[in-house]
Amino acid sequence: MTTAAPDRLPTLLHYWRSSASWRVRWALAHKGIAFRHETVDLLQREQRGDAYRAQNPIGHVPTLVLPDGRRLSESVAILEFLEETHPSPPLYPTDPWQRACVRQLVEVVNAGIQPLQNLIVLDRHAEDPASRTEWAAFFNARGLAALEALCLRFDAELGKRGRFAFGDTLTAADLFLVPQVYSARRFGVDLTPFPRIVEAETAALETPHAEGARPE
Amino acid sequence: MTTAAPDRLPTLLHYWRSSASWRVRWALAHKGIAFRHETVDLLQREQRGDAYRAQNPIGHVPTLVLPDGRRLSESVAILEFLEETHPSPPLYPTDPWQRACVRQLVEVVNAGIQPLQNLIVLDRHAEDPASRTEWAAFFNARGLAALEALCLRFDAELGKRGRFAFGDTLTAADLFLVPQVYSARRFGVDLTPFPRIVEAETAALETPHAEGARPE
Repeated sequence: MTTAAPDRLPTLLHYWRSSASWRVRWALAHKGIAFRHETVDLLQREQRGDAYRAQNPIGHVPTLVLPDGRRLSESVAILEFLEETHPSPPLYPTDPWQRACVRQLVEVVNAGIQPLQNLIVLDRHAEDPASRTEWAAFFNARGLAALEALCLRFDAELGKRGRFAFGDTLTAADLFLVPQVYSARRFGVDLTPFPRIVEAETAALETPHAEGARPE
Repeated sequence: MTTAAPDRLPTLLHYWRSSASWRVRWALAHKGIAFRHETVDLLQREQRGDAYRAQNPIGHVPTLVLPDGRRLSESVAILEFLEETHPSPPLYPTDPWQRACVRQLVEVVNAGIQPLQNLIVLDRHAEDPASRTEWAAFFNARGLAALEALCLRFDAELGKRGRFAFGDTLTAADLFLVPQVYSARRFGVDLTPFPRIVEAETAALETPHAEGARPE
């Protein structure tokens, strides 16, 4: 961990069960970056209040606040920034094609699944819990099917079945996949069609910094 | 433009009005990369057929097919790959913080707006055109308001009002912003609250490679 004085630490504005918050907590832990926590209570809809939207105008968590006050949101942007400023240990491969594959997996979650289960989307789609869950489960299952197919395609390109989402090393793809699988379970998605994903989830959760980042 | 033989050109599987396709056409043109076109007709729902889903399992356009047959989808992954393999002319700043700001703008569009107006989401939300348009217009207006605030925040950090989405140079943020503004107009969103965005759109559309990438 870094040894900066507490007032020189970045602060993460986040929520325990937010999947985007989980990704960033995990990336910070993986790279050994000490940080302070502040909770934004999504269930109280604090993310839609003026105070939080002054930090991130679209009202999504998390936001990383640097010691000098600059603020950065969007988990993809935060992970890429951490990778560029704290390259070791890495979260992306070095080969440009392999980086592209990892980024494709990341975006299938970040743009293809998670936005569709966001609270504001569920709130706007339907009030009754059954309709909300059915909607979220549909998009989770659809996206995980795509992830399963892509992981198997990349295995074929790499010449062996990977332990993690991409190959045999923890990458940003795992930091996106694991919280999404947690959400899929919460929405009752049957994971038996996705054995490759469940194996990757298991491997990722056994890595040293996985535990501290989890919602629990 | 590159002078590779036609059978050594990448092929873009895309649709004229898809905003993600537009971003990638523009990036290829900006970097002077010659490519072939193949249309995936979204209105015929070709993107959900087996043939296209063998290219991209989630069924979104575009997909870039390299001359050796490797396939890459997700416009963010494609733009970052093009930037790493064809760095000049660039689409991202060199400073890590500024790159992070551009990526935040990119993701507000890529994860915060566009997925919510995707055809499969509209199809699943409602059949009647008025409900579909109201849904899409809401999320476009909400996302553009966030973009407007972020562009102004980054102007303040940079010390002057930028001509483009971020600063005075065309970046990936413009390649995401411009197609989104086109969509917002199509859904009837009032753009008068977003003067900074409309100025950036105008500047971006005046750059040399903007015209050829447009849907028209």
